[in-house]
Amino acid sequence: MKVIFIGAGNLATNLAKALLQSGHDIIQVYSRTMESAQALATLAGGAPTTDITSVRADADLYILSVKDSVLAELIPKVCAGRENKVFVHTAGSMPMNLFQGMALHYGVLYPMQSFSKQKEVDFSVIPCFIEGNDDYTLQLLEEFVHTFSDRCYQLSSEDRKYLHLGAVFACNFVNHCYELSSEVLQAHGIPFDVMLPLIDETAQKVHHLSPADAQTGPALRYDENVIRSQSLLLKDNPLMKDLYDRMSVSIHRTELRRKGE
Amino acid sequence: MKVIFIGAGNLATNLAKALLQSGHDIIQVYSRTMESAQALATLAGGAPTTDITSVRADADLYILSVKDSVLAELIPKVCAGRENKVFVHTAGSMPMNLFQGMALHYGVLYPMQSFSKQKEVDFSVIPCFIEGNDDYTLQLLEEFVHTFSDRCYQLSSEDRKYLHLGAVFACNFVNHCYELSSEVLQAHGIPFDVMLPLIDETAQKVHHLSPADAQTGPALRYDENVIRSQSLLLKDNPLMKDLYDRMSVSIHRTELRRKGE
Repeated sequence: MKVIFIGAGNLATNLAKALLQSGHDIIQVYSRTMESAQALATLAGGAPTTDITSVRADADLYILSVKDSVLAELIPKVCAGRENKVFVHTAGSMPMNLFQGMALHYGVLYPMQSFSKQKEVDFSVIPCFIEGNDDYTLQLLEEFVHTFSDRCYQLSSEDRKYLHLGAVFACNFVNHCYELSSEVLQAHGIPFDVMLPLIDETAQKVHHLSPADAQTGPALRYDENVIRSQSLLLKDNPLMKDLYDRMSVSIHRTELRRKGE
Repeated sequence: MKVIFIGAGNLATNLAKALLQSGHDIIQVYSRTMESAQALATLAGGAPTTDITSVRADADLYILSVKDSVLAELIPKVCAGRENKVFVHTAGSMPMNLFQGMALHYGVLYPMQSFSKQKEVDFSVIPCFIEGNDDYTLQLLEEFVHTFSDRCYQLSSEDRKYLHLGAVFACNFVNHCYELSSEVLQAHGIPFDVMLPLIDETAQKVHHLSPADAQTGPALRYDENVIRSQSLLLKDNPLMKDLYDRMSVSIHRTELRRKGE
């Protein structure tokens, strides 16, 4: 397929590389800055541009991968004069109907992963969630996704909101727990890398056990002595102490609910 | 070395297996129930017992791996009549001086990992934190640990408190974030296993980047529209909503501090 990228961020960069490897033809890359448009075009092919009015009209698929906040503003400009083409955005938390009235065929293609430009990911195992405004778009997206990922799911805009929320917990909040752990260690001269085997095992465990079955630690058994003394260690950091206390209560309540108490 | 285990839980089971593989001789296993003493003795060798007074006096090392809450009560019983032997406990959050006045040589051996009985772990990569009340004990523990792990660190009881707190964030709280994610998905018919590639990548990232550098998502850029609408999705679950809001604030504050704003 002939593809044009609108946006050249982390997600666009990783997706474009996967498309190139699957034999698709990236004919143009638009970005706000020539530097980033050029960087992606060099990696994945196509001509870079920073002029939205010069985006070509002959692509099969337009992939809008930009910040949520500029998506609504960009959509009319990208669709104008190409109303019969197929447009998708890649934003987990934004609805499909942003395209309504702007184009005939549109949808969403949300590859759920945390992307960085430096680190290559294996796209074939990344779950991709698609949505289309009509059967034509849906079928096209499904066939398209299957050229680079084995895991394609249809999901409505409404359910995708919850998927994205789940991803915030499982990725952003998890990483913040790593960050808080790192802060605690650093203040006592302990290198963060001692934590890596535990971090890896914690991630590996939920491949085989449900997170509820995998839980361990003082909050699970509500060991008040340990909880109280750990909480006290954080007394100079009210926000972290608060997170510690509430997380502990939440773990304990989940466990009580699970046991049906 | 001739080793006796006091306690037969997840940690003891995994450690005993590693000791057996490294050529140590487990001569006895004490547990409150014959079932668990027998289970560990079958795996790792030695005679099972539930009678603390019948614990043999001829071991080189006594490893107390029991619940934090019963440690103080068990220590005098285990040490009595064997004051010249070497004793360690394996509790991350308990001080070494629980043994003070009870024995001549004592310390702590804390292998930092989340253990389960079903799942074998590679002990050689598990960081083991040791502490000893004298040079004799410290040297003995260091040599002992090097027979089964490549990662042996000396750490005081005071610093170990913070290490254990860091582990609660990086393991228990992380796993609870997985659990909350799973709840959100389940309520919308989305299988939790779609989250695994993201979970793995999030864990992998901090092998190469600091958690602060690895952070992504709406809270990092403080995208108030996304944060507000995601928070609203949790309005029927006040505790989870509260964790969402506070986590988001904490991520944002960390980022501001990092940027020196």
